[in-house]
Amino acid sequence: MTTTELSVKMILDRWNASIKSCDTLINNLTDETLLKEIAPGKNRGIYLLGHLIAVHDDMLILLDMGNKLYPELQEPFIKSADKVVSQIPSAAELRKMWTNQCDVMKQKFESAKTENWFEKHTAVSAEDFAKEPHRNKLNIIITRTSHLQYHIGQLALLK
Amino acid sequence: MTTTELSVKMILDRWNASIKSCDTLINNLTDETLLKEIAPGKNRGIYLLGHLIAVHDDMLILLDMGNKLYPELQEPFIKSADKVVSQIPSAAELRKMWTNQCDVMKQKFESAKTENWFEKHTAVSAEDFAKEPHRNKLNIIITRTSHLQYHIGQLALLK
Repeated sequence: MTTTELSVKMILDRWNASIKSCDTLINNLTDETLLKEIAPGKNRGIYLLGHLIAVHDDMLILLDMGNKLYPELQEPFIKSADKVVSQIPSAAELRKMWTNQCDVMKQKFESAKTENWFEKHTAVSAEDFAKEPHRNKLNIIITRTSHLQYHIGQLALLK
Repeated sequence: MTTTELSVKMILDRWNASIKSCDTLINNLTDETLLKEIAPGKNRGIYLLGHLIAVHDDMLILLDMGNKLYPELQEPFIKSADKVVSQIPSAAELRKMWTNQCDVMKQKFESAKTENWFEKHTAVSAEDFAKEPHRNKLNIIITRTSHLQYHIGQLALLK
């Protein structure tokens, strides 16, 4: 294994481990608990779950791996703060979306080749990418793993 | 820049950005706020700050980059839960340690060469490392960035 292949493996391993840790955490919280705020006056667990699905959906676009699975989540969980949109999917519905999305992304990530990860992501121009080659697809995984861990730390407070 | 150099850069950039984000957050919290729990019955901000310094100190050992700067923090902030050890450093003292440690680590990381990051970390045997070359120093940065982000998500609740 080359050092480049090793780097890609370590970064994807960390993403997969974070997804697994979030999945285990969510499965150990009841729907009722997900409706609670992580701290007084802060986001509810259900909002963070919807937010993670919406952000991960956007990764599919950035990685040029197809369309969003649940575009209807962008409005309530990214553009709006918690408790602003009154009609949101139930915890049961969000759990199904989360599980399906994790499976879909896992398959797509596994079929990508090492060199694909160093291609530009779709939000950077070819011109900028020539100057800043770190703005690639692998960096999307790195930054979104950080984002996921940030919110796992918060969801863990509901335990 | 080779894809290996790019990978190392992206991983170190993410670590540095997480450190900066934590630093900004801490600087915006008063000592009084740091003494509060992040959520009712959970860890206090001051414990998380001490915990991060203690965990980052241990990275110096794992990365074979010298001794711990503050070995006295292992007992109250890693081996013990919050509020178990009554005598802990003040917020002001921890802030100084945090700032100094960030500077020291930054310097050490900047002087490391690309190939150094793929060397085995000190907690894995040469035999295991031959079979599992991903257990290298770069992976310590990847996993500790995840750990840092997890706790930044919690500290952010004190804002």
